[in-house]
Amino acid sequence: MKTIVAGVDIGGTNTVVGLVTRDGECIAETTFPTQSHINFNKYLERLASEISALIKMQPSTYSLVGVGVGAPNGCYNTGNIVDAANLKWKGSLPLGSGLNSHLNVPIAVSNDANAAALGEMLYGGARGMKNFIVITLGTGLGSGIVVDGKLVLGSDGFAGELGHTAVKAYGRQCGCGKSGCLETYVSAPGLRRTAFKLLADSIEPSALRNYSYDQISAKQIGNLAEQGDAISIEAFEYTGAILGMKLADVVAILSPEAIFLFGGLSNAGRLLFEPTKRHMEKNLFSNFRNKVQILPSGLNGENAAVIGAAALIWQDLDKNV
Amino acid sequence: MKTIVAGVDIGGTNTVVGLVTRDGECIAETTFPTQSHINFNKYLERLASEISALIKMQPSTYSLVGVGVGAPNGCYNTGNIVDAANLKWKGSLPLGSGLNSHLNVPIAVSNDANAAALGEMLYGGARGMKNFIVITLGTGLGSGIVVDGKLVLGSDGFAGELGHTAVKAYGRQCGCGKSGCLETYVSAPGLRRTAFKLLADSIEPSALRNYSYDQISAKQIGNLAEQGDAISIEAFEYTGAILGMKLADVVAILSPEAIFLFGGLSNAGRLLFEPTKRHMEKNLFSNFRNKVQILPSGLNGENAAVIGAAALIWQDLDKNV
Repeated sequence: MKTIVAGVDIGGTNTVVGLVTRDGECIAETTFPTQSHINFNKYLERLASEISALIKMQPSTYSLVGVGVGAPNGCYNTGNIVDAANLKWKGSLPLGSGLNSHLNVPIAVSNDANAAALGEMLYGGARGMKNFIVITLGTGLGSGIVVDGKLVLGSDGFAGELGHTAVKAYGRQCGCGKSGCLETYVSAPGLRRTAFKLLADSIEPSALRNYSYDQISAKQIGNLAEQGDAISIEAFEYTGAILGMKLADVVAILSPEAIFLFGGLSNAGRLLFEPTKRHMEKNLFSNFRNKVQILPSGLNGENAAVIGAAALIWQDLDKNV
Repeated sequence: MKTIVAGVDIGGTNTVVGLVTRDGECIAETTFPTQSHINFNKYLERLASEISALIKMQPSTYSLVGVGVGAPNGCYNTGNIVDAANLKWKGSLPLGSGLNSHLNVPIAVSNDANAAALGEMLYGGARGMKNFIVITLGTGLGSGIVVDGKLVLGSDGFAGELGHTAVKAYGRQCGCGKSGCLETYVSAPGLRRTAFKLLADSIEPSALRNYSYDQISAKQIGNLAEQGDAISIEAFEYTGAILGMKLADVVAILSPEAIFLFGGLSNAGRLLFEPTKRHMEKNLFSNFRNKVQILPSGLNGENAAVIGAAALIWQDLDKNV
């Protein structure tokens, strides 16, 4: 018998399910739309049947021993999804217990940033590290924090909301109801907001002036920056300045070995990493200077989220061996 | 035989040594000036002899089994004091190994905020808590962070430098060489700086206008506030606004059950706690609202620092049982 787990990445648009070995290899994957189901129970049924179907397609020697789920606002302590901004089902959704009643195996639930952090620790660039942080940069900004080899969950399972720390009082309006949150500056939409702020502040000609706000993507701003567009380059500089300043705070509090940037916006590479590192160093308390690495994820980009989700349950199963 | 440890609190002015039982009772205490010694080795000799003398004064059934030291920039991992701002001896000072060679018992070194956090966990208001933070408010602002029942030391043993996170770019000059650090706003000197800023900004009459900067203390500003002096009250409001805002960040990152305010400035009580709590709640991400307590230290004020230092070594000794 060969044991295997399912890793599930629940996004606002799609749910991705993969089967992942103890070595972090994703041997099969499938995708289905998240929100086309009439209610959360129907969604759970679909998710369970997709996992079962994927298992049935494997050699009969494979046995499912657990499911790890990375979900928006997923709480490790309760297994619930709680008031996720990008899901239409509100309140507290019993994801862990619901999935367990369908599949009868242990289920581990957490948010996608915690899943990414465990994935990095078990299979990625953080192998051998005890203290590190993963920042996920996409529609929002999430963070998974590892201290002394363990995921920091906090008293309620919701630690790691770095995206909702304050950049400044009376700053940009955030979807969470506050203003000035880090993710309103540092995320794919944050970069777009910054580009439009710079277009307003400056009289510099820019290819950006041909795009509407709804047209332009973070990836396109990156492409324009690569082509030398000054405002686009400045947008990354501004983003890195704010991220670097806040990372200096996080380093002062937690003293990690490394900070990994993960997800969509991190693909901008040097455009984002260089100003982030420079501004972090500038803002660091002297004890911490030139010690902390800022690194890209060491996980295979394509399956990274699913492998991270699988790491959640592999770590749980390892503990119980 | 009754086992006992020495708790040592090294301050810029005085060193306090106490003998502390496993139950956290300080049964004897002595004090000597820290910086009257010609070099660090002479200081170490004096410290060891003060501890030995204190033991000799006890019934012969008492046996010293370890020493815990809370010291500025004390590093748990190495046992060294590294470039402490308020000590005249610079570089890396081998406190742990030096003391061990004199006394031949295990030595645990950390900074005073970490000592306070362990003291709170073993003997104070954090008994039974797994996730909490202690903020020490005196000449500076220190923090000791406990996650999942363990002190957060970070990759180099220097985690917890919340005092050097950023309130704002181009803010007040800090002794650490940066500007805008939290401790330039929230500490005893920070309160004084705020009071003088408010005297400059406002035309309100105030008893504070009779004091020079070097004359007035944080305690006196507290007394004037209690008597209804508007600028003094406003100085606490401003201090609480900044501390509350930064604590909201820390809660978003770590999700603690409680935050303890410890040391000199925390004695201002309601004057400080009320605006801090109010502004923290205002800045909290919705998940965390009305969950996190802000509490005074539960340790006996007089011996708190020494009991905290003793907790450092008791926790180490407990691990090895």
